[in-house]
Amino acid sequence: MPEPRIPAAQLCRFITAAFERQGLPPGDAATVARLMTEAEVQGSDGHGVIRLVPYSKRIQAGGLNLRPDIKVVKEKAGMALLDGDNGMGHLVMEKATRIAIEKARNCGVAWVGARLSNHAGPASLYARMALAHDMIGMYFAVGNANHLPPWGGLDMLLSTNPIAVAVPAGEEPPVVLDMATTVAAYGKVKAKAQRGEQMPEGWMIDRNGQPLTDPRRADEGFLMPIGGYKGYGLSMIVGLLAGTLNGAAMGSEVIDFNKDQASITNTGQAIVAIDPDAFGDVDEFKARVDKLVRELRGSERMPGVDRIWVPGEQSHARKIANERDGLQLPAALRTQLDAFARELGIPLLQDH
Amino acid sequence: MPEPRIPAAQLCRFITAAFERQGLPPGDAATVARLMTEAEVQGSDGHGVIRLVPYSKRIQAGGLNLRPDIKVVKEKAGMALLDGDNGMGHLVMEKATRIAIEKARNCGVAWVGARLSNHAGPASLYARMALAHDMIGMYFAVGNANHLPPWGGLDMLLSTNPIAVAVPAGEEPPVVLDMATTVAAYGKVKAKAQRGEQMPEGWMIDRNGQPLTDPRRADEGFLMPIGGYKGYGLSMIVGLLAGTLNGAAMGSEVIDFNKDQASITNTGQAIVAIDPDAFGDVDEFKARVDKLVRELRGSERMPGVDRIWVPGEQSHARKIANERDGLQLPAALRTQLDAFARELGIPLLQDH
Repeated sequence: MPEPRIPAAQLCRFITAAFERQGLPPGDAATVARLMTEAEVQGSDGHGVIRLVPYSKRIQAGGLNLRPDIKVVKEKAGMALLDGDNGMGHLVMEKATRIAIEKARNCGVAWVGARLSNHAGPASLYARMALAHDMIGMYFAVGNANHLPPWGGLDMLLSTNPIAVAVPAGEEPPVVLDMATTVAAYGKVKAKAQRGEQMPEGWMIDRNGQPLTDPRRADEGFLMPIGGYKGYGLSMIVGLLAGTLNGAAMGSEVIDFNKDQASITNTGQAIVAIDPDAFGDVDEFKARVDKLVRELRGSERMPGVDRIWVPGEQSHARKIANERDGLQLPAALRTQLDAFARELGIPLLQDH
Repeated sequence: MPEPRIPAAQLCRFITAAFERQGLPPGDAATVARLMTEAEVQGSDGHGVIRLVPYSKRIQAGGLNLRPDIKVVKEKAGMALLDGDNGMGHLVMEKATRIAIEKARNCGVAWVGARLSNHAGPASLYARMALAHDMIGMYFAVGNANHLPPWGGLDMLLSTNPIAVAVPAGEEPPVVLDMATTVAAYGKVKAKAQRGEQMPEGWMIDRNGQPLTDPRRADEGFLMPIGGYKGYGLSMIVGLLAGTLNGAAMGSEVIDFNKDQASITNTGQAIVAIDPDAFGDVDEFKARVDKLVRELRGSERMPGVDRIWVPGEQSHARKIANERDGLQLPAALRTQLDAFARELGIPLLQDH
């Protein structure tokens, strides 16, 4: 029997309670919970409530500042730099995105970087925030563990450094790209290992440059960048823009947040807001996006292909279904959350 | 015997004369010639003087406006939109980049888009212009011929839509990424065909999704995006930012400029300038870039790998060598340029 579906609002209350109990101020707990629930709703389940226990471990190890003073340390008309004061990344990037949108309304385009931030969930979460304002959002981040060596190298000095871009459409779903600069995200490798499956060739290589397909041997190799040396370059550039530019960790400064719960990660992220209304009529822009989306979707398909998808369409459909029907959490995750609720002394998810 | 090397200044005078003879105002001819020569000097030979004859064909077919009124049609503090009036792309993007740099000095970050532009040479040319101002440059463009279908599709509705990013360093060469969103640029396929070589698997597929390795059969298939569906998404997003946002051609509106010399291409491009000085001390930023570059370069190598390269290092080395020793043009290109000079009635390259 499948687990009963959980309304998103119920999950949100549960996460809020869990963070409040651990000492986050109620408003901050609610903000983080809302964003983690949104991640779950849009189908980014690797970055949703599954992170509650790891985030909490970091809180309990003293690796996160529960009362951060998140402040603008540098500012011009079209940019700001936030010091996250080692607060939860969601709080830092939610504030960063609000500032970027506000500045873009005046300047047309605005870029807000952050340092001393932390893991903030899926990259598209913040890029998507721009959509409600009829703006384009772009997000860059330095990943929180290095899994990628430079091209031809063996030292894992780079992370999966993701890029997300969200573009508003008119009647069509927004176009949303959310991609790691590696062929597979590390979470996908972990999922293959859990399911006892082999990885396809091209995801990882071993230290001799040979394909590595057994996910249980993941520690003996590294992720492959997309397009070979191109993805290596892209990962480095994203790291320069999201990390180095902001004075955040990059290269060997990046700590593996899976293994080290207590050290300050000094995570770097950046959000860019672009107001299409500055470039011309925003409705005309959205109509042009619709036209392009329909043209791609309606184009001729390769034999055996049922449908051509536009980036973001599948997560949009999941979002609608999850909002309507509630969220389906895997049984193992439910069990983990129940155990964690008992440990914290808060009501179980089902009782929220 | 190898062809004698040509000093860059001599090539620049030759290109200037060729464009002047075809009716470009002297100042504009000199600007285009300088940028085409720079492309050659930095080793982007697929986008350098080899384009003189194709550009000229377009001029002679009436497909380029020789006296364009390149003007700002939309403007805010952190952005501008240029109408290129179908002038040469180099003129449009040189102006766009100057405006972006000027605005970034005030706003910290600025984004300038262009429509009714044309092919402007290698993407990195404009991103690199920011370096002389200690700024980061980012460039996006819609390619001038569609070679890529949507993922799972057969209709070539997308181009190689390149991205370039240039980041200033201190003592190290700048970090410069210049990449098509396809595994191989179309120029590389043409070069393989000319040399009678096969392509590696992964560059192109045929209409059944099977690997296509014979470059003479390139017309029967299409380029592969980097990282599969990720590269498809990236190409679409670059096209939305550089094309659709600016009211420039995208999707089926893109004409193949190799086959159609007379129609207005309505090429879209965008340049972003980011001033690291707005984010903190620019010298400290450049020192951090140096540190990262050295860390990557000095890291452990895979067996058989001589050296780890950082993006932009090889073109930087070529630039230094070409400036010092002059440019080495292939014999076939020299012959073509000599014939073209005679046709125009201007002195041969060697006599400039």
